[in-house]
Amino acid sequence: MRDQVAVIGVGCTRFGDNFDQSYEDMALEAASLALADAGIEADRIEAAWLATFSPYGGNGKASVSLADSLRLYGKPVTRVENFCATGTDAFRNAAMAVASGVYDIALVLGVEKLKDRPVRGLAGEGDHPYRSDGLTAPGIFALAANRYFHEFHAGRAALAQVAVKNHRHGALNPKAHFRAEVTERQVLDAPLVAWPFGLLDCCPTTDGAAAAILCRASLASSFRSDPVLLRGLGLAVTSGRPWYDAASSYTGFEATSLAARAAYRMAGVSDPLDEIDVAEVHDCFTWTELANYEDLGFCPRGHAPSFLAEGRSSLGGDLPVNTSGGLISSGHPIGASGLRMVHEIVLQLRAQAGPRQVPNASLGLVHNLGGPGSVACVLLLGRS
Amino acid sequence: MRDQVAVIGVGCTRFGDNFDQSYEDMALEAASLALADAGIEADRIEAAWLATFSPYGGNGKASVSLADSLRLYGKPVTRVENFCATGTDAFRNAAMAVASGVYDIALVLGVEKLKDRPVRGLAGEGDHPYRSDGLTAPGIFALAANRYFHEFHAGRAALAQVAVKNHRHGALNPKAHFRAEVTERQVLDAPLVAWPFGLLDCCPTTDGAAAAILCRASLASSFRSDPVLLRGLGLAVTSGRPWYDAASSYTGFEATSLAARAAYRMAGVSDPLDEIDVAEVHDCFTWTELANYEDLGFCPRGHAPSFLAEGRSSLGGDLPVNTSGGLISSGHPIGASGLRMVHEIVLQLRAQAGPRQVPNASLGLVHNLGGPGSVACVLLLGRS
Repeated sequence: MRDQVAVIGVGCTRFGDNFDQSYEDMALEAASLALADAGIEADRIEAAWLATFSPYGGNGKASVSLADSLRLYGKPVTRVENFCATGTDAFRNAAMAVASGVYDIALVLGVEKLKDRPVRGLAGEGDHPYRSDGLTAPGIFALAANRYFHEFHAGRAALAQVAVKNHRHGALNPKAHFRAEVTERQVLDAPLVAWPFGLLDCCPTTDGAAAAILCRASLASSFRSDPVLLRGLGLAVTSGRPWYDAASSYTGFEATSLAARAAYRMAGVSDPLDEIDVAEVHDCFTWTELANYEDLGFCPRGHAPSFLAEGRSSLGGDLPVNTSGGLISSGHPIGASGLRMVHEIVLQLRAQAGPRQVPNASLGLVHNLGGPGSVACVLLLGRS
Repeated sequence: MRDQVAVIGVGCTRFGDNFDQSYEDMALEAASLALADAGIEADRIEAAWLATFSPYGGNGKASVSLADSLRLYGKPVTRVENFCATGTDAFRNAAMAVASGVYDIALVLGVEKLKDRPVRGLAGEGDHPYRSDGLTAPGIFALAANRYFHEFHAGRAALAQVAVKNHRHGALNPKAHFRAEVTERQVLDAPLVAWPFGLLDCCPTTDGAAAAILCRASLASSFRSDPVLLRGLGLAVTSGRPWYDAASSYTGFEATSLAARAAYRMAGVSDPLDEIDVAEVHDCFTWTELANYEDLGFCPRGHAPSFLAEGRSSLGGDLPVNTSGGLISSGHPIGASGLRMVHEIVLQLRAQAGPRQVPNASLGLVHNLGGPGSVACVLLLGRS
């Protein structure tokens, strides 16, 4: 990038069953927290990006709903949608706009209200022919998990350990949807959703909003002494029907590998396990987190279950993953999730993560995976 | 912008009732035409932006549907949605990404298939409370047109002249949905939709796709001798309920004025009428084109009817507007329209517009207006 980009403020609502907040209420809360964190007034925002998969009033309301909730009038507001990678891709577009020199200060805000109505495009819709074959999100990822089990002789116990870890982390996160620890037995005994996934292997449906304020890095020191720098970004899209792709092993996601490669190249990262200190990755299902370890290069193919079992991805391990509790505990308000991850990594890099703090974290990774594993976005954030 | 950005290829399908083409067929056709125009292979594309208001398989299919239709695998693809300004805003985001130095060559593609199913968000949807008051698109713009008539003593004859001009231009455009000239009498006698708009005052519902290929300007000469340069861009969002805004005259759209001001500032344009040679503006309704003249600074407030009547915005006038026939003749496949406008302006700047050619055009303007006049995007393109 021509200009370096800094994150000078982050904000996040409590994630959960937010029946007492409208879509606009949550947007306003997240933006206000991010502005307060940056120590700036809203009129300093020169442009905004809204990350939302399902605008509350339908497509034709997205950008104005952000303008109206924040009274952010007369400014550019763009809606980005990219499946479950909506939040990170909106961040990516905002960052490139700042790096281009067109804007000095930008807001990226993800918000989703999913609990009080059915959401188009998430499950069971007629336009997706494969949905009628049972290929909803759990079905799609379950197929890949079964293939992974077959290839690498893993089983449901490895999945349960992801849920146990992420709920243990999530219990420390006041923004998380679920804040209760669970046992391996509870995970294994939970009602089945799609073999091998039981209820506790699946992230919940959640309301929430999260925001970040970006600025040209050369200006960041005028706002705060500890800005976080964007070190790398990558987005990759593969086929929307990975299970029909004869070249796919279907035991991981090429989109993640390619997005990570692009981000690592930009940041000059050659050994992710050694160089990255903390990561928020897309655990839409427990198995997805295992696939992510391998796709992101944290461990070799097939080694994710042992990487997890050895505690290396737990708080206290050498690369703590999902210190927030991940999607599994925090919940997954689609467009907000990527920004919620940025919020967590920024807290970690500023040593403000409280009981979840990773000591001396200086480089953090954010990863979203979208669609049937077809879209991945990776961001690398570092201490300045 | 740090780096200048060039347009090295454009492509556009025939707009119309494209029942014989799928969403993906149209995307592939527009992209292929743009690649051929640029003289490059698809593998040179480093990143893509998809402009679509209504992804054909629902939200959860947008970016992968572009990847799958073009076999553009492993690359970044972002969907941008911003009401009827979707196409130009996607172009804007792609241009800033190229200007940031992250990508050298990018594709922007707009596509919409609207004719064979009802489209969510366009009319009559329950989540928009004001829709139940009749405030569909024709209703919203009709209210403003009536206010304009009241303020400036104009009437339906001025609107009819817009339709006559744009159909005269559109008859010269082989890509247009409608290619028949109409008379002022026919426009005035057409069935009423929402007073003062009759059927011929309204743009039609249309299928189509259009694409542009952008690159870092310093590379453009390696592709073609006549690249077009992006000179300025602007996007502005105002309230989603302009008719409740006591500060609004409701005789034009502040979003357009603000977006134009940003683009003019970037391009160093101080006298738009004198400096701009040709413009494609958002004539979703005939009256909208009149408002655009004033909001874009082509003529003073209230003077649009005389500006039009004097032939100044016709082919042969001093600032021909909508030489393509505009939305009124070309049709309005939402996300594709902005790119279709870019296609027309690029042809004009390269002196390839045939019978629609504006002599010696060196600076062209593209303008989209979205939502209830709340979102506007302006691009300025110039000969290199």
